[in-house]
Amino acid sequence: MSSTSYTFDTEDVLFTCFDQLKMHEVLAECPRYEDLDRDVYATTIEEAYKFSRDVLAPLNAVGDRQGCKLDGEGNVTLPDGYKEAWETARDGGWTAPRADPEIGGSGMPAIIGAYLSEVESAACMAFVMYVGLSTAAARVIKRYCTEDLAFPVAEKLFTGEWGGTMCLTEAGAGSSVGDNRTKAVPAEGEAGVWLLEGEKIFITGGDSDMVDNICHLVLARTPGSPEGTKGLSLFLVPKYWFSPDDLDALGDRNGAHVLKLEHKMGINGSATCVLGLGSKMPCRGWMVGKEREGMRLMFAMMNEARLGVGVQGLAAGSASFQYARHYVHERIQGTSLKNMRDGDAPRVKIVEHPDVRRMLMTQKVLVETMRAHAYRLALQFDIADEHPDEDTRAKYLRRAELLLPICKSVCTDLGFDVAVTGVQIFGGYGFTQEFPVEQLVRDAKIQSIYEGTNGIQALDLVGRKMRMEGGRLFMEWMQYAKERAAAGAEAGFTAEAEAFNKSIDAVGAAAMHMAGVGQKDIEAAMLYAVPFLNAMGYVVLGLEALDQAVVAKAKIEAGTETPFLKGKLLNLDFYVANFLTKVVGLSKTVRSGDTSCLDAALFQG
Amino acid sequence: MSSTSYTFDTEDVLFTCFDQLKMHEVLAECPRYEDLDRDVYATTIEEAYKFSRDVLAPLNAVGDRQGCKLDGEGNVTLPDGYKEAWETARDGGWTAPRADPEIGGSGMPAIIGAYLSEVESAACMAFVMYVGLSTAAARVIKRYCTEDLAFPVAEKLFTGEWGGTMCLTEAGAGSSVGDNRTKAVPAEGEAGVWLLEGEKIFITGGDSDMVDNICHLVLARTPGSPEGTKGLSLFLVPKYWFSPDDLDALGDRNGAHVLKLEHKMGINGSATCVLGLGSKMPCRGWMVGKEREGMRLMFAMMNEARLGVGVQGLAAGSASFQYARHYVHERIQGTSLKNMRDGDAPRVKIVEHPDVRRMLMTQKVLVETMRAHAYRLALQFDIADEHPDEDTRAKYLRRAELLLPICKSVCTDLGFDVAVTGVQIFGGYGFTQEFPVEQLVRDAKIQSIYEGTNGIQALDLVGRKMRMEGGRLFMEWMQYAKERAAAGAEAGFTAEAEAFNKSIDAVGAAAMHMAGVGQKDIEAAMLYAVPFLNAMGYVVLGLEALDQAVVAKAKIEAGTETPFLKGKLLNLDFYVANFLTKVVGLSKTVRSGDTSCLDAALFQG
Repeated sequence: MSSTSYTFDTEDVLFTCFDQLKMHEVLAECPRYEDLDRDVYATTIEEAYKFSRDVLAPLNAVGDRQGCKLDGEGNVTLPDGYKEAWETARDGGWTAPRADPEIGGSGMPAIIGAYLSEVESAACMAFVMYVGLSTAAARVIKRYCTEDLAFPVAEKLFTGEWGGTMCLTEAGAGSSVGDNRTKAVPAEGEAGVWLLEGEKIFITGGDSDMVDNICHLVLARTPGSPEGTKGLSLFLVPKYWFSPDDLDALGDRNGAHVLKLEHKMGINGSATCVLGLGSKMPCRGWMVGKEREGMRLMFAMMNEARLGVGVQGLAAGSASFQYARHYVHERIQGTSLKNMRDGDAPRVKIVEHPDVRRMLMTQKVLVETMRAHAYRLALQFDIADEHPDEDTRAKYLRRAELLLPICKSVCTDLGFDVAVTGVQIFGGYGFTQEFPVEQLVRDAKIQSIYEGTNGIQALDLVGRKMRMEGGRLFMEWMQYAKERAAAGAEAGFTAEAEAFNKSIDAVGAAAMHMAGVGQKDIEAAMLYAVPFLNAMGYVVLGLEALDQAVVAKAKIEAGTETPFLKGKLLNLDFYVANFLTKVVGLSKTVRSGDTSCLDAALFQG
Repeated sequence: MSSTSYTFDTEDVLFTCFDQLKMHEVLAECPRYEDLDRDVYATTIEEAYKFSRDVLAPLNAVGDRQGCKLDGEGNVTLPDGYKEAWETARDGGWTAPRADPEIGGSGMPAIIGAYLSEVESAACMAFVMYVGLSTAAARVIKRYCTEDLAFPVAEKLFTGEWGGTMCLTEAGAGSSVGDNRTKAVPAEGEAGVWLLEGEKIFITGGDSDMVDNICHLVLARTPGSPEGTKGLSLFLVPKYWFSPDDLDALGDRNGAHVLKLEHKMGINGSATCVLGLGSKMPCRGWMVGKEREGMRLMFAMMNEARLGVGVQGLAAGSASFQYARHYVHERIQGTSLKNMRDGDAPRVKIVEHPDVRRMLMTQKVLVETMRAHAYRLALQFDIADEHPDEDTRAKYLRRAELLLPICKSVCTDLGFDVAVTGVQIFGGYGFTQEFPVEQLVRDAKIQSIYEGTNGIQALDLVGRKMRMEGGRLFMEWMQYAKERAAAGAEAGFTAEAEAFNKSIDAVGAAAMHMAGVGQKDIEAAMLYAVPFLNAMGYVVLGLEALDQAVVAKAKIEAGTETPFLKGKLLNLDFYVANFLTKVVGLSKTVRSGDTSCLDAALFQG
């Protein structure tokens, strides 16, 4: 292995999935997964790693340097190797791991889906986005399309024969989706068919040469519908028209054309398109679900999408850490600090330098805690979806809903930071394209922006999730957090548990403060939504470090001492000293009452 | 003005230079600057802004997209417009603002040099690097070359007719310069001429088509010299050979050839070269200074170079803030939070959203405090160099030496963060190359690495500067910091002063702790050099916010209330609530005693 070869820490995945989260036991209670077992999961984990390493990783730098190309007809050509990799993904059944087997999927739970997103995105984020968008579109189609379309079209997408996109954003309607101006009117003489007109931007996979047809899911406004999100309906708009009776007989080109590709900081292998609807020829589509229900349908996919982006952030960090942990053994530079006065002292690998180890440990601890957090969240959604007991489903849904904006925001912000730290570890070489770490930084930067900016995640947490059911979700989390701290103390981590209790209290105090302010001045309260989310996020990740240390300690005491397990105890020490120490300060920031930046004297036009 | 047009906040520069630092009064005491006055400085500030806006800013995106080209002869062609801009810079006297007028310079003090670096780098960092390296080489040449070469060669460089480079780094000798393997032997039959052989990497401006000749300053080892830095000598190696008698009659091509250009994450307009010495033909050079004195000569330039890189970090942040502060008035998105339940409420500019204002304020406060800090440091070097009183010179040199690694490290780390925040403010558009903010992030990333990585800066602070003269530099700074806090309290900022005192004490406690640990275990102490530097850095920047608030308050009380001056009071509020709150946590990290990441169980090969 070298610092330019893709590797992945499957040992940590197995520990997290089986030793810590006990996913095989938890999911055995759910009918949907009762036939799956630890062996099946472990095999999938291993096979996905090989697929990512052998098929996806080789695409990464090529796709970045080549980018995508658009011809005059609105057809997009992807970078070399993408088409072949897509075929390999189809053959291996990697295009729809979570869909049911009868529709071309592998029937895996969300926690395995999270792992797959991580291991694949760490290899080539740009490529994996085509899979992610297609399957998201397929799920909407399967669930909400008319019966004649739902199953057959979804199957085309899940099997990767066709592709799919989600078309929400417009030039004037990004974070504010309700300002959508695309229009849809019934087509004359064609029952059930609508004509669309408008322009969508930032459409991932708006066209590609990997698939035979593309199904765009488009938000548009029908005649007489009100302004805002309430007036939006959803449409299925294919690139080539077809009859529901025979999907293999593709008809005429439909009027959804790529007008432009964006030139971006990263994810250059992912075609980010401006999509014209009706700009070159009439654009036909079928309505999905009922009129003016478009936003509700889209929202049904949002949880999965936001978790997926959080996992992308984790993946950027985890890939950077893997490259760095190899590089520090290859690169020789300087002498040990212990011999700093002796010019003749032997030259050492940079892993010997304390500050390099501090940076590596920062990467390790953040990656492993983000992984545990994201996988746990996915498992909570699995239970919320599939557990036979209604109360259990409801309880886990509340937990997951609360943590989702934290996962999306914290994993993308800290994943980016971890990727930046990777460049620093590589030094001057890290800034060059000879090593893969700088691309990770560029690719990752979009994650804090799309699928709801991290500022919007914080508003979702503070303005919506924490107010649901009179604050029940947050109070249940406080109780859960205290229980985890108590379990840590019981396992012998008493000083650490005390530090956690103090931090949890600081988060609680910050929440109380915001609730009080919010009753009088919503802007003053929301001003500190982001620092609050970060404070809570550091506790959430820290609890995973604590939980993993408890599990590792039990295994060590049972007789299995390995460097890996010892590393989990060290993670906890490092986390408490380096990250938990940030929580009190962030809580003070939230409680400062400072509203200086809202002053009208500032930022005048 | 729009969010894609370059602008610069000269109002803040004038406030910092004249109202806060009173540079015109301070420098009037120094003979070298006694003929300059506020009007001269203010005119230079204004003219440099125009030059940056009209000449440099238009190069920035072009240079990034085109990059540099290398032909088979080792000749580099720079992006379109660079050559013409270089001529304009020469005509305007911008190639050597700090050099003496009799050698082609403008005789400006370091504080004006810092401003020029900021305003120019904010426009086009890649271009300005050619100027920076050339003038740095020229200063070494002027000071240390033999008499026949010193003045005439330095003049060629200062006037921009020729270019210059600094050639330290080799593939195996980056941070550890002493591992340099380039060799130099006396040329047979040519008195004073040496033959060099080796390969240097990461050479900025290793070749260019803007200048007639290039003078490389090369570190190399002479026969019989010891290993390590003690054995290195410095050589002047021209691209075209010349006789000191007639520099205008350029001779044969010399054997210093660009073998490769690096492909990088950013600063693509800056040719980063692998330079072969003696690889294609013999490579001749003159020795600079005495044999085995090379490192000392290079070190003499290091202070200015590190300050310069700190200013580059500031520039990345300040450019991003300028673009963002315009963009927030152009971009309309969503409704006010106050009307969040009303879909028909008017759409607002994003400057109305609290979280956007929080991000903008983060940029503003960090940029303005970094500016004050960096400019003050430059002024301290001016006093240390030019004040007639020896004790005053020594006192300011101690202050400046201590703060230099903080300036380099904090301004590049936070400057990068501010640039990243700019992308976030722009949202999805910020990730595209239609707006200039993503390039700022890519260009800035190298700053935390070159001229001594930020980890090395922290070692310099903790392992060297804080131990000089028995800790005197640090103790003097503690006293200075307390005095600034007291001055703040006297001006009426009593609560803020108390917060500062608490933070200063936390930094002091962290320093005491490290000193104690360091006596027993140097690695355990140095492990926390970076968090310590950051803790102290937040206090250093915060004291500038406090100092500026004191100045602004006095002006307001004297009858001049402006939004700008009010902004300085708001800066202080925001800083205390959002940044000073980090210091206690960082101090706790330093004092944790945690050495988990040094454990041998971790990061095994």
